[in-house]
Amino acid sequence: MRPSSSSSDPAPFGGLLGPLSGAADVDAELSDTALLQAMLDVELALVRAQARAGLVAGDVSRIATDVDAACRVEAYDIVELGTDAVPPANPVPALVRALRSRVPGEARGYVHNGATSQDVLDTALVLVCRRSLVPLAARLAGVTDALAALADAHRATVLPGRTLAQQALPTTFGLKAAGWLQSVGVATDELLRAADALPLQFGGAAGTLASYGGHGVEVSAALADELHLAEPALPWHTDRRPLVAYACALGAACGALGKAATDVVALAQTEVGEVGFGGGAGGSSTLPHKRNPAEAIRVRAAVARVPGLVGTLLACMGQPHERAAGQWQAEWEPLRELLHLAGGAAGGTGDALAALDVDVERMRANLDLTDGLVLAEAVASRLADRLGRQRANELVRRAARQVRDTGTPLREVLLADDAVTESLSEADLDAALDPAAYLGAADEFVSRALAAHAARGEGPRG
Amino acid sequence: MRPSSSSSDPAPFGGLLGPLSGAADVDAELSDTALLQAMLDVELALVRAQARAGLVAGDVSRIATDVDAACRVEAYDIVELGTDAVPPANPVPALVRALRSRVPGEARGYVHNGATSQDVLDTALVLVCRRSLVPLAARLAGVTDALAALADAHRATVLPGRTLAQQALPTTFGLKAAGWLQSVGVATDELLRAADALPLQFGGAAGTLASYGGHGVEVSAALADELHLAEPALPWHTDRRPLVAYACALGAACGALGKAATDVVALAQTEVGEVGFGGGAGGSSTLPHKRNPAEAIRVRAAVARVPGLVGTLLACMGQPHERAAGQWQAEWEPLRELLHLAGGAAGGTGDALAALDVDVERMRANLDLTDGLVLAEAVASRLADRLGRQRANELVRRAARQVRDTGTPLREVLLADDAVTESLSEADLDAALDPAAYLGAADEFVSRALAAHAARGEGPRG
Amino acid sequence: MRPSSSSSDPAPFGGLLGPLSGAADVDAELSDTALLQAMLDVELALVRAQARAGLVAGDVSRIATDVDAACRVEAYDIVELGTDAVPPANPVPALVRALRSRVPGEARGYVHNGATSQDVLDTALVLVCRRSLVPLAARLAGVTDALAALADAHRATVLPGRTLAQQALPTTFGLKAAGWLQSVGVATDELLRAADALPLQFGGAAGTLASYGGHGVEVSAALADELHLAEPALPWHTDRRPLVAYACALGAACGALGKAATDVVALAQTEVGEVGFGGGAGGSSTLPHKRNPAEAIRVRAAVARVPGLVGTLLACMGQPHERAAGQWQAEWEPLRELLHLAGGAAGGTGDALAALDVDVERMRANLDLTDGLVLAEAVASRLADRLGRQRANELVRRAARQVRDTGTPLREVLLADDAVTESLSEADLDAALDPAAYLGAADEFVSRALAAHAARGEGPRG
Amino acid sequence: MRPSSSSSDPAPFGGLLGPLSGAADVDAELSDTALLQAMLDVELALVRAQARAGLVAGDVSRIATDVDAACRVEAYDIVELGTDAVPPANPVPALVRALRSRVPGEARGYVHNGATSQDVLDTALVLVCRRSLVPLAARLAGVTDALAALADAHRATVLPGRTLAQQALPTTFGLKAAGWLQSVGVATDELLRAADALPLQFGGAAGTLASYGGHGVEVSAALADELHLAEPALPWHTDRRPLVAYACALGAACGALGKAATDVVALAQTEVGEVGFGGGAGGSSTLPHKRNPAEAIRVRAAVARVPGLVGTLLACMGQPHERAAGQWQAEWEPLRELLHLAGGAAGGTGDALAALDVDVERMRANLDLTDGLVLAEAVASRLADRLGRQRANELVRRAARQVRDTGTPLREVLLADDAVTESLSEADLDAALDPAAYLGAADEFVSRALAAHAARGEGPRG
Repeated sequence: MRPSSSSSDPAPFGGLLGPLSGAADVDAELSDTALLQAMLDVELALVRAQARAGLVAGDVSRIATDVDAACRVEAYDIVELGTDAVPPANPVPALVRALRSRVPGEARGYVHNGATSQDVLDTALVLVCRRSLVPLAARLAGVTDALAALADAHRATVLPGRTLAQQALPTTFGLKAAGWLQSVGVATDELLRAADALPLQFGGAAGTLASYGGHGVEVSAALADELHLAEPALPWHTDRRPLVAYACALGAACGALGKAATDVVALAQTEVGEVGFGGGAGGSSTLPHKRNPAEAIRVRAAVARVPGLVGTLLACMGQPHERAAGQWQAEWEPLRELLHLAGGAAGGTGDALAALDVDVERMRANLDLTDGLVLAEAVASRLADRLGRQRANELVRRAARQVRDTGTPLREVLLADDAVTESLSEADLDAALDPAAYLGAADEFVSRALAAHAARGEGPRG
Repeated sequence: MRPSSSSSDPAPFGGLLGPLSGAADVDAELSDTALLQAMLDVELALVRAQARAGLVAGDVSRIATDVDAACRVEAYDIVELGTDAVPPANPVPALVRALRSRVPGEARGYVHNGATSQDVLDTALVLVCRRSLVPLAARLAGVTDALAALADAHRATVLPGRTLAQQALPTTFGLKAAGWLQSVGVATDELLRAADALPLQFGGAAGTLASYGGHGVEVSAALADELHLAEPALPWHTDRRPLVAYACALGAACGALGKAATDVVALAQTEVGEVGFGGGAGGSSTLPHKRNPAEAIRVRAAVARVPGLVGTLLACMGQPHERAAGQWQAEWEPLRELLHLAGGAAGGTGDALAALDVDVERMRANLDLTDGLVLAEAVASRLADRLGRQRANELVRRAARQVRDTGTPLREVLLADDAVTESLSEADLDAALDPAAYLGAADEFVSRALAAHAARGEGPRG
Repeated sequence: MRPSSSSSDPAPFGGLLGPLSGAADVDAELSDTALLQAMLDVELALVRAQARAGLVAGDVSRIATDVDAACRVEAYDIVELGTDAVPPANPVPALVRALRSRVPGEARGYVHNGATSQDVLDTALVLVCRRSLVPLAARLAGVTDALAALADAHRATVLPGRTLAQQALPTTFGLKAAGWLQSVGVATDELLRAADALPLQFGGAAGTLASYGGHGVEVSAALADELHLAEPALPWHTDRRPLVAYACALGAACGALGKAATDVVALAQTEVGEVGFGGGAGGSSTLPHKRNPAEAIRVRAAVARVPGLVGTLLACMGQPHERAAGQWQAEWEPLRELLHLAGGAAGGTGDALAALDVDVERMRANLDLTDGLVLAEAVASRLADRLGRQRANELVRRAARQVRDTGTPLREVLLADDAVTESLSEADLDAALDPAAYLGAADEFVSRALAAHAARGEGPRG
Repeated sequence: MRPSSSSSDPAPFGGLLGPLSGAADVDAELSDTALLQAMLDVELALVRAQARAGLVAGDVSRIATDVDAACRVEAYDIVELGTDAVPPANPVPALVRALRSRVPGEARGYVHNGATSQDVLDTALVLVCRRSLVPLAARLAGVTDALAALADAHRATVLPGRTLAQQALPTTFGLKAAGWLQSVGVATDELLRAADALPLQFGGAAGTLASYGGHGVEVSAALADELHLAEPALPWHTDRRPLVAYACALGAACGALGKAATDVVALAQTEVGEVGFGGGAGGSSTLPHKRNPAEAIRVRAAVARVPGLVGTLLACMGQPHERAAGQWQAEWEPLRELLHLAGGAAGGTGDALAALDVDVERMRANLDLTDGLVLAEAVASRLADRLGRQRANELVRRAARQVRDTGTPLREVLLADDAVTESLSEADLDAALDPAAYLGAADEFVSRALAAHAARGEGPRG
């Protein structure tokens, strides 16, 4: 029943620019072919559901077979259907006509019977959301696995923690990676949860399933079962919360990936140089020496487009009455685009991590750029035990000023200060100035993130 | 420990326009007073947490008492703190200075010890989110209770279902209200869930809790316990997913409320007139006869501002390194504003429902506006049993055209058609043309929404 | 030099859903083929500009001819270029390689010489903006011409003015159309102005045109001239204001079209019925009697997607240094999508106006739905001349209450009131209750809008 | 007639967080006091306009004086008006009641006569836009003046141009500043232009000025004149284009300021260190050595909130009929907030520039971080003249690889290469490796930006 997108598919995300912001496997599930097949899957399932509810007269099995045979995407001309969709502002009527023309008369009356266009299109979009999540979740799992390995490998790799664009205190690259891991990991959990909650849409022309008489709920249950979807409490034609919740989960996942990509770009800056990228990727056309963080750039570019799309879906929630004249129709493309961008963000992050060279020496060396000031708090902390916090802070602040004004390293300035040497031995001072000794709970935090990741891995989603 | 906002509070949402989009009880929890008190609550809890971790020397109980006494919002000048916040782009340093100046020397060193500004402000914002949720959730519960009553009372109230701005089929006002109920109810569940997941923020200057040496995690656990907040796996200074998830839940709840308000405005149109509003509210200054749906208008106005704010928070997720230089600071006001607007949307919906007059007769009468065409599908359905679907559809389509062209009611047109009368008796036809007989699963759907609401009420949230 | 999009083009906006939100002629200028041709046009113009600046050695004319021959979009494989664009996150390097391989050695060195990828892509996008504006402006001109005709034809067609969803006072359909005309007209003017301001992008690798030595400005001027584009004061690689200004102008134009579509949908509601749509367009699959305002729905759906895209472009303005690592790359697709949606909005509005049936009788009849209350202000106004404003208002308010409570028409209620009949004769009262007599400056306003439209038509844009 | 905001004003942008994102002088024009005074100014001007149109009977001069005396903001209780605004969802009716109660009977009938709430509130918001532009434009002028000085002073200050986070080629700090100047300068021009186009709103209850009979246009012209506002062709109650155009111009100006602030933060990074900030501003509470770019952070924080607000206003353009039930009311606060943030962005940029220390030595030194690779293109360029482009590029690419692999400076690597030394003398090579000699048109571009700035200064806006 599942389509595979072919190269002749007028794929909305292929071509010249699409590949830059998407991932091919996710995009395949978002293609017009895939969407159309999903619509056909709904139509077929509806005939079967009617049969299960005892509403099909005649040779039930043959009718199902006939409709099944007609529900193959290959038999339809997507460009023609798209053109025919313009006058009613909706592609379903044209598809139903085409499908009915492909089944024998006996079956024809059951095709689309009792359904409304929105039932088919909403449910097909739900199927697309869930089907595209298969490769998307695989990519996200690849990302979190890579991040877990990175976090574990770099538990002891010190580098400057940076706040407000300034070096602040030492931290570890392991903790940095653990932060990315935790964010992407939880975002993935929430995405899977939101996908599970995406329900069947089925209400008929005005949301009452009126044309089935007393059998509507029965058909609805069978249809949900056929499509392996949750059955909603009631039709949600103009209650867009389920779709919006999924869009928000996609948005948060993209945001989590974008945070990691932002850090990667920042670490890859020429002046920071703590990560690099092997291979020739990202090479500039005119500047042979540049190795641009191209994968992370693609991620950031994809992620930057997400908030506007989520906002659009939120803004379309005020749909009047039983079907909206504009806001519903506005959702289709932004939703596909969100899925496309999420694929690209996950794919690009995977690519960036695969190509990532961590420069452990440069990380350590960058801690010396402030002549020791990045450990001023550590020194103040040790001094405070002897001199009281206030006195210690004053001493260190004065020393810091001298470091900045003269360029003399903090170690030297402090060793020249009797008030310091009376309290701390040279060895004590060196200990205080050792970044590896001032990492607090960094290692514990890494362990926690790894434990959460491992627990996730043991779950049913594996 | 809890503030009450006073009239001298430079409340960001009071004054001339604020009351239009907010609810006073929610706004009180969003005031500068409330935010400042939350910051003081964090500072006090931090001193206590240090004591619980055995890090406080001297008379622990006295130190706690001294800090407690200084952590009263009344003692601080909000306008001055706001002004002093400008140079460091953050209100915490000024507050810490002011707080330290109010505690004896012995206690001073423990104030804010080991914390960074973001620990205090993020955690205070989390407290504000959770505290403002108390009145907000109460208002949402009021809304869903009112909607449940409405849905139950109007199970049998027929009105036109409307799709794409056109009357489509009959539905019930009970089902309409049940749809609002289900959407707001689930959105409330999700909001409460997201609030529970909002964690303590605590990582110190670079997210390692370095200045506590090996005791950071201990202090963190005690601090979370003091504040009744979840302890995060690791600090989330630049992982904004938790806050974004809450913002999205607020956005979806507002969207659900906005959908109901949109319907109310649409039903209140002069030409539809199916709901009205008692009392003088909404009276126009120059048009004495108008009774504007003012409460629903306020809801729609509040909700229209939400997607941009959620989008802003999503767009700020790409925060580099260990603290962002702009994107973090950009979150504070949009978050408060979202809470304010959610309060206004919930409050306004409550007001609108309290004032709502349902005009059952007008609803029924509006079903006659299409001369019976709104029941064309019902007739076709009955005819199909006798004539086959295709034949039936053709017959009805032809009749419909005649109704439109001549203005003759569908009943008359059909009775004049032998093909019809051969298949249906006049009584059959009248049954087919009775809206109350063509409601499908409407009643079942209402029951489902009510059952879900009742189950919700039995939960721990009451 | 201009492309025509072929059916084998992997058009981003074709296929199943694209035609619903776009216009074919505008989309053709947005296709991958068109964008690629624009990039080739820039590369060719750059070789010519170098020649004009005297920087080309050898047989200048032959080199130009050779490059020209290679700058035909048909010779390139878009899907391959898109795939090759992924590693550097940018399609230009692959294109330059392909182009160089297609020109003789003598010419090769001049291809892309001195330019950076962003020069080519930004300028190509500017060309796409301007080329797509040709069919877009033609569609907008069609819309304003149709609106002008409508406004003029319906100067005297009275209908209820509606504020806050309630009938307020009479107005004319001519004034309504004049409001649409004025908004779309000025928005078109601003769009054309913003397009004229879109400049060439040309700065080389870091915005200094360094590789031309002292000849950079000369080449830049020649290049702008070749492409018929404004030469910017300086390169705008990370000053995105020009593009954002164009996006905002597109956004405002879409908003203006969306306002008209919103009104059309509102007027087409079953209960209002003041406009309809001839032909079978918008027919429902299951409800034979419905004639949905499908064209206006498409417009509203397109327009609803615009604010998020404009917001995305605004949010990408903070591009660091001389080229952004993500925000620039994020602009390309939203910009194309905005152009696509603007095309769809203009096209859909044109279609809606072409199909529009104005039901003059229904408009007049709807003025009677309030039993005369829609003219209460007119009566109060006349009474005020005799009784003073306060007294008059009180009288009318009391009468209005009686109308609402009893359903008696205002005319009867007023005629039964001695206070009224002492001041106004029955003829006076009938005059006051005549909607056509209470239209204030409506006709003058229509004339103003038509005059502005006519003046626009006389301008160079014709 | 102009207000000055007092400390007892419940200013929406004062308090704890407001000062961080705003500028006090701009905020004063946005206060509730200022908005209320603007509303009173409109009401007073309307009475005068009626008098000028000959519609006021009795002692015209006395009536005007009486109304003038009552139109003082001090006489009104803003909190009470805000509360009274809730039921009608609009503050005007309460104000009109309060104003009428403060004028003698003779004048009372002319107060608000013929106007609708939206006339007063829209026009008051236009006045607020224009009045707040006085301090805003002054701040923007201060910014561009400072940028012009910076651009001129640093024409010859070389630093690395950076693309995609990598050093690319040398540029000058003067050109960087010129880029900021050009962007902010043109954005300011466009803002002033958009402000001039903001028109009076005046249409009465349904946009026809019906209650003035034939005199509506006359009153409208007089009212525009009284308020020094452009008279619109027709009322724009539901044509929000003028306001949206202003919002977009604000958005673009904020974006231009945000670009500069982004660069400042990037240059101030510890590892780049090319700019710093004198004084103690931005000092960290726990890290004595940090000097955070606090002003630029405030700018970025303000600017990050802008796209969502502009998007909200764009999304509210689809206002149905003659007054919208929600979308109009949604505009008021986002518009004020945009003005507030624009003030903060301009103010913060001014503060940042005033505190900016440019570290010319560090800029030059950073050019050495790539061991000469940042000049690889310059060398290739010189070599190409002798060896042909392809050969030269190959040579340099090979050398660049060696530099990266071995850490040997490019100069040494090249001098060791016979192919190079055969073509270039050591002096030639040193010339090629001199950043100051590879700046292309940088100086010319600076001159252009300064000329544009100077031309601007000579205009009427000074």
